Amino acid sequence: MMANWKNLDTLESFKELEGKKKVSVKEAMSGENGAKRVKNYSVPMAAGLTYNYAAKAVDDDILAVFEKLAKEAELTEKFEELFNGEVINTGEKRLVLHHLTRSQLGNDVIKDGVNKREFYLGEQKKIADFANDVHAGKIVNGAGEKFTTVVQIGIGGSDLGPRAIYIALENWAKKTGNFNMEAKFISNVDPDDAAGVLAGIDVAHSLFVLVSKSGTTLETLTNESFVKDALAKAGLDASKHMVAVTSETSPLASNSGYLKAFFMDDFIGGRFSSCSAVGGAVLSLAFTPDVFARFLNGAAEEDKLATNKSVKENPAMLDALIGVYERNVLGFPSTALLPYSQALSRFPAHLQQADMESNGKSVNRFGEFVNYPTGPVLFGEPGTNGQHSFYQLLHQGTDIIPLQFIGFNESQLGVDVNIQGSTSQKKLCANVAAQIIAFACGKDDENNNKKFAGNRPSSIIIGKQLTPESMGALLSHFENKIMFQGFLWNVNSFDQEGVQLGKVLAKKVLAHDTEGALKEFSDLFEI
Amino acid sequence: MMANWKNLDTLESFKELEGKKKVSVKEAMSGENGAKRVKNYSVPMAAGLTYNYAAKAVDDDILAVFEKLAKEAELTEKFEELFNGEVINTGEKRLVLHHLTRSQLGNDVIKDGVNKREFYLGEQKKIADFANDVHAGKIVNGAGEKFTTVVQIGIGGSDLGPRAIYIALENWAKKTGNFNMEAKFISNVDPDDAAGVLAGIDVAHSLFVLVSKSGTTLETLTNESFVKDALAKAGLDASKHMVAVTSETSPLASNSGYLKAFFMDDFIGGRFSSCSAVGGAVLSLAFTPDVFARFLNGAAEEDKLATNKSVKENPAMLDALIGVYERNVLGFPSTALLPYSQALSRFPAHLQQADMESNGKSVNRFGEFVNYPTGPVLFGEPGTNGQHSFYQLLHQGTDIIPLQFIGFNESQLGVDVNIQGSTSQKKLCANVAAQIIAFACGKDDENNNKKFAGNRPSSIIIGKQLTPESMGALLSHFENKIMFQGFLWNVNSFDQEGVQLGKVLAKKVLAHDTEGALKEFSDLFEI
Repeated sequence: MMANWKNLDTLESFKELEGKKKVSVKEAMSGENGAKRVKNYSVPMAAGLTYNYAAKAVDDDILAVFEKLAKEAELTEKFEELFNGEVINTGEKRLVLHHLTRSQLGNDVIKDGVNKREFYLGEQKKIADFANDVHAGKIVNGAGEKFTTVVQIGIGGSDLGPRAIYIALENWAKKTGNFNMEAKFISNVDPDDAAGVLAGIDVAHSLFVLVSKSGTTLETLTNESFVKDALAKAGLDASKHMVAVTSETSPLASNSGYLKAFFMDDFIGGRFSSCSAVGGAVLSLAFTPDVFARFLNGAAEEDKLATNKSVKENPAMLDALIGVYERNVLGFPSTALLPYSQALSRFPAHLQQADMESNGKSVNRFGEFVNYPTGPVLFGEPGTNGQHSFYQLLHQGTDIIPLQFIGFNESQLGVDVNIQGSTSQKKLCANVAAQIIAFACGKDDENNNKKFAGNRPSSIIIGKQLTPESMGALLSHFENKIMFQGFLWNVNSFDQEGVQLGKVLAKKVLAHDTEGALKEFSDLFEI
Repeated sequence: MMANWKNLDTLESFKELEGKKKVSVKEAMSGENGAKRVKNYSVPMAAGLTYNYAAKAVDDDILAVFEKLAKEAELTEKFEELFNGEVINTGEKRLVLHHLTRSQLGNDVIKDGVNKREFYLGEQKKIADFANDVHAGKIVNGAGEKFTTVVQIGIGGSDLGPRAIYIALENWAKKTGNFNMEAKFISNVDPDDAAGVLAGIDVAHSLFVLVSKSGTTLETLTNESFVKDALAKAGLDASKHMVAVTSETSPLASNSGYLKAFFMDDFIGGRFSSCSAVGGAVLSLAFTPDVFARFLNGAAEEDKLATNKSVKENPAMLDALIGVYERNVLGFPSTALLPYSQALSRFPAHLQQADMESNGKSVNRFGEFVNYPTGPVLFGEPGTNGQHSFYQLLHQGTDIIPLQFIGFNESQLGVDVNIQGSTSQKKLCANVAAQIIAFACGKDDENNNKKFAGNRPSSIIIGKQLTPESMGALLSHFENKIMFQGFLWNVNSFDQEGVQLGKVLAKKVLAHDTEGALKEFSDLFEI
């Protein structure tokens, strides 16, 4: 039986939610009740992570309505349809199969005679073999020397996710002996991006991974030319330095200009492609194929939890419901992602894409405009850095911004100093614990300038350490949260028509086919 | 005569502004009128920059009220009082003198018998001499060898601004022969930050710049210990590798543990300290003292424009008024900063601090709660990267996010390729021009999913190239915009009481002096 797709504001349980008494986070988190909430409002995740929502503006009453809403909106049923191969991306009439790159969920999905899970696993295997050969010195440069650097050329989903995950695991890999090649990334059409990266590497020992599903992304093809120019100028044969990650039907697929091509397909959206060959090639080369496999396992374990019917056993669904409650009942327009981990410094930028590109929509799956706010603005920087920056507004600004913290008990490198009786790692953890309470409970003061109103809701994901498994679980959690929110808002989270108009107009500018204000701006830029 | 400080909603011209007919950006930017607006709604800035606000939701009527509002709020008079040394930071009872680090504005400010302008210039000169000696090999490491790397240790304002400016000018300096030392930055108390940076540099040839105004910033002192540990383990004398940037009264000031100390004072707020010794030391060492002086000159030229009484000749004041109009009349809660320049990749993070920490306040200068929204959420990433990420929401999301673009006609490195009839630099420029029109005018379509409502307001700062001068002008523009907005909202933009509570609670956690929810979270982190 197919799921029913309905607008959020037509659901009885959403109306019930709107009528529920609001929770004062300040009251709820004070005293013994606060301590109880920290113990009780906690959901186990994969890879040793825990999702704690004690400091969110919910209580047992509201959670009970969440259960009804999850059921009425058929959230897990829709997820099942998705991974079993229904056409969930209705706008582009495509399946949505990124879970199959890592999971054993559901039935086999056969499309055009191909078992898609086997196809993705096959590409992962091809990449593993290739990376092992590169690391073993079986695949070498023209002079017979080993490659030392891998450079990803891609933009958007082909850049932000893989880059964030590389940065997240770089120190861990170095510490654990899983580091093979330094990775660099070229994304922007700004020529200073490619030129700057190329000036900083040894091109003779660099392997370039060109990532474009269609094989036609303007920025990526332009940057490929940049790289080929640089290789030619160094007297090197480009075809011995480049691999492609693309779809089987793209012009890059069977092309003698590349050492090798690895495939994804139209059923993996760019912003959900980190677990496909898009992330697989660069991460397997930089680290090891085993590290990438462990990362996929973490994501797969977390995916399983996202099939649980009960909200309290499904952290991604619970997180999604809390976010929709904050957006559509409490009326908060943005949300901050605050990892207390320098390794996660670019994870907010990746989730900014994943979230805002997926759910920044005004029409529902049937092409009708919705009457309620959908995806919020998402931003964030690592703590404790953010504490010395924009936290002032979070604590004492006129708007309430819901917060999502991430923290780990242990550092990755294990190098630490003991100052004033504690290590840096303990100071880091103490700070995130303190912030949750400061935001929730605030502080009274005779001087209004030193008063903290509190009532700023937050959740936290706590883990032992940021590892390939916990990184995979984190990625899956947020991807599935975004998916469930899209189901609740009844939008298609898997297309991105909003990026088209700018492309069309930019082509007109370059073709000098403009008039009015666009012509004037083109003139200002001397185009 | 002293200026009158009044709440925004008590000003007659603000009430007039609220009653003015709203401008449809879509209508205004269409056809010949749009072309005229691009020509007319343009203000020259310093260093060859131009502020263009054609695509903002204003017209001549609204601009006329802006003139009244600027006058009624006494914006330029307040600025004059500020740079002439009044106690503008009322919360901390401090002068606000960051303009004197670069400008010849106003009267001499004598405080405690010291001419402050001469003091700041004197520190700039001390830094220049020191940097020249380091570059010339007169100041060397213990083995008599030249330093090759400079590492800034600081957090918040001691990190974000200097880091953003270093990244902004790194390629330019390399291209123009003004590059002397690679710069790195350690900020987070997360031990993996310091350990990661230290593992990637040659400590024997590294000079560390410890930046803390008070000399007591927890993160910075902890990271200093990290560095001293590393130096000791390498058998090096730390005192030959470290300089301090601090206040004259701090424990770091006269300390044999440092090669040299450079001074700032309490009248330079951290987030406004890039033009003081905080930015001066690392930037003069990485590049040259002359590059830093040119950067200051650009800022000084832009500061002069901020004294102009007429809104149309004062780009920072105009930008500030537009932002307040968008926040308090049109009701938009966030704003995006979108530089089409990879070199400006961290400038949004710096401005996020400068803006949100300055104006994320709920009380006015007299400690009374205000009845209107103040500082918005500010976020951003470079274009064209953002186009492949969160622009979907900006174009088709349910909320309108005002936009602030930055773009340059020329790249910094001058390396480019011609693909499909245009260079990468022209493609970059074509994209930002196209985006302005796409956001403003939108596009109709039978398919709602492909419809763009338009009416998304944006401004753009256009320059010839990102150089020290134009970087200085950009920084000044935004600092002064933030200042003028603080004047309009009648908040004290120069304190940050909102960062205190978290610090106090973190200390309690580390002292095991906790109960209730805070104790439970401390236990989860095994503190």
